[in-house]
Amino acid sequence: MTRPIIFGEIANIPEGYHFEGRKEMMPTSFHRNWGAGIDGNAKEGVSAIVLSGGYEDDQDLGDEIIYTGAGGNDANTGKQIEDQSWNNRGNAGLLKSQNEGLPVRVIRGSNHKSKYSPKSGYTYAGLYSVVDSWEEEGKSGFKICKFKLIYSGTNNTRNTAEEVEVRYSAEPTKRKESTILRIVRDSKIAHNIKKLYDFKCQVCNISIPTKTGNYAEGAHIKPLGIPHNGHDSSDNLICLCPNHHVMFDKGIFAINDDLTLIGAVSGELTVHTKHDLNKENLKYHRETHGYN
Amino acid sequence: MTRPIIFGEIANIPEGYHFEGRKEMMPTSFHRNWGAGIDGNAKEGVSAIVLSGGYEDDQDLGDEIIYTGAGGNDANTGKQIEDQSWNNRGNAGLLKSQNEGLPVRVIRGSNHKSKYSPKSGYTYAGLYSVVDSWEEEGKSGFKICKFKLIYSGTNNTRNTAEEVEVRYSAEPTKRKESTILRIVRDSKIAHNIKKLYDFKCQVCNISIPTKTGNYAEGAHIKPLGIPHNGHDSSDNLICLCPNHHVMFDKGIFAINDDLTLIGAVSGELTVHTKHDLNKENLKYHRETHGYN
Repeated sequence: MTRPIIFGEIANIPEGYHFEGRKEMMPTSFHRNWGAGIDGNAKEGVSAIVLSGGYEDDQDLGDEIIYTGAGGNDANTGKQIEDQSWNNRGNAGLLKSQNEGLPVRVIRGSNHKSKYSPKSGYTYAGLYSVVDSWEEEGKSGFKICKFKLIYSGTNNTRNTAEEVEVRYSAEPTKRKESTILRIVRDSKIAHNIKKLYDFKCQVCNISIPTKTGNYAEGAHIKPLGIPHNGHDSSDNLICLCPNHHVMFDKGIFAINDDLTLIGAVSGELTVHTKHDLNKENLKYHRETHGYN
Repeated sequence: MTRPIIFGEIANIPEGYHFEGRKEMMPTSFHRNWGAGIDGNAKEGVSAIVLSGGYEDDQDLGDEIIYTGAGGNDANTGKQIEDQSWNNRGNAGLLKSQNEGLPVRVIRGSNHKSKYSPKSGYTYAGLYSVVDSWEEEGKSGFKICKFKLIYSGTNNTRNTAEEVEVRYSAEPTKRKESTILRIVRDSKIAHNIKKLYDFKCQVCNISIPTKTGNYAEGAHIKPLGIPHNGHDSSDNLICLCPNHHVMFDKGIFAINDDLTLIGAVSGELTVHTKHDLNKENLKYHRETHGYN
């Protein structure tokens, strides 16, 4: 496979785009595999999947999809004949996408049994995030690897993750009242910063282990959104473990211009030579949290 | 003040409910203070706020509100005459609501300058969550305490947090692509479990310090939502620090029936004598993450 893997939207292929066949998806790297449903691998993550009705345990609720991983089925009959494995190239790739917050392009084929499927060919359903993964005994009796994907594109007329939960949950009124939802879709910039630190926290050097590498979060120094209006740029991002992310956002500690820490955490921020931090934003974070 | 504080919705007072005056809000504990904008305190948190145009630094975007804390203004003129303090009863209470994920009833008065304000009296705007807090120099030159609240009620026709961000951000298309959004609205059940453990992690005993106590997260053993359909009940909830919450959700460790841990974390889960865990759900979590 010589074409590079590309994550996120591909130019001139918007949501709802129709393909007559799989071959058309290949030149742009939209989906590089003619045969397999999953485009990607354990090292890079998965950039695209095709839903084509190959698995009997899938569920498609539109903006929320329960997807069966790859492997263990007979090439001719499609029937499950052995356990699936998390080491399978595609399954390990989907775990990687989950842990690193990579966006996955979802494509529905006409063979996929869902009211969202096209009558012929394939349609692009948009960008999704892998938010959960687990294993279970499939209808076949064999172990299968499963993934939950939620729509995470920028189409405002579609459901966001939370709305989908509300609508389809077994307990519709309770779902929204409950605890914490992590939206794991990172920008390319945040992802690159996390990679630069090998997903280790710049404060405590801890990395959260997962089945496919480490997990970390991109924290904005000057917050995004009103009224702060910080930017999603590398000089405004640091790589933190979830605990230090919570503490930083709440201003329980802050960062001096010389990178020493102040507040409830002592020590110094580890900063890579290739990573310049915006000192104005460090100052903004300090001042807004009372470190003068 | 003898009436008890009540969090969340009050019977027979739906979103949009109109009050002629502040006194009407008192018998039901909807808002117990006739004079103050904030109903609550540092120990219990804040259950309700009234937006009444008292502060010149407020911003009201409907489902997203930038709110100025209490104190430092002249009782007669309303003008800011000294710095506000995080120790102020109402401000400390709003921090508590932020850290513990408590819902805040928001009420708009006719004096509040916003297109969402009623022409007369007061209207109930629904439940909001405090998602951010910081200090800044107000228009007056004095330090003011500020809070960001986002709508977190169950009205599906209103904007969810993420949609609001998308709509009002300085960089509308970028916001949705970026990192992690913590929805901090807990159910009463999750809040009670966290309180039972004094907001300490049941795995590592760490508590995340904040300005007003500790921070922890309620983690569901059998996940909510499809396809797992776990319940938001105390026997399905544990109190974890953000790091162990991420690890538990990803199945990097699991819990045996005898409460010892398996996987990448060793040791034993601390469990309060008043807290019964659902063993079927512990088994479900183990099995779906490959611990057999």
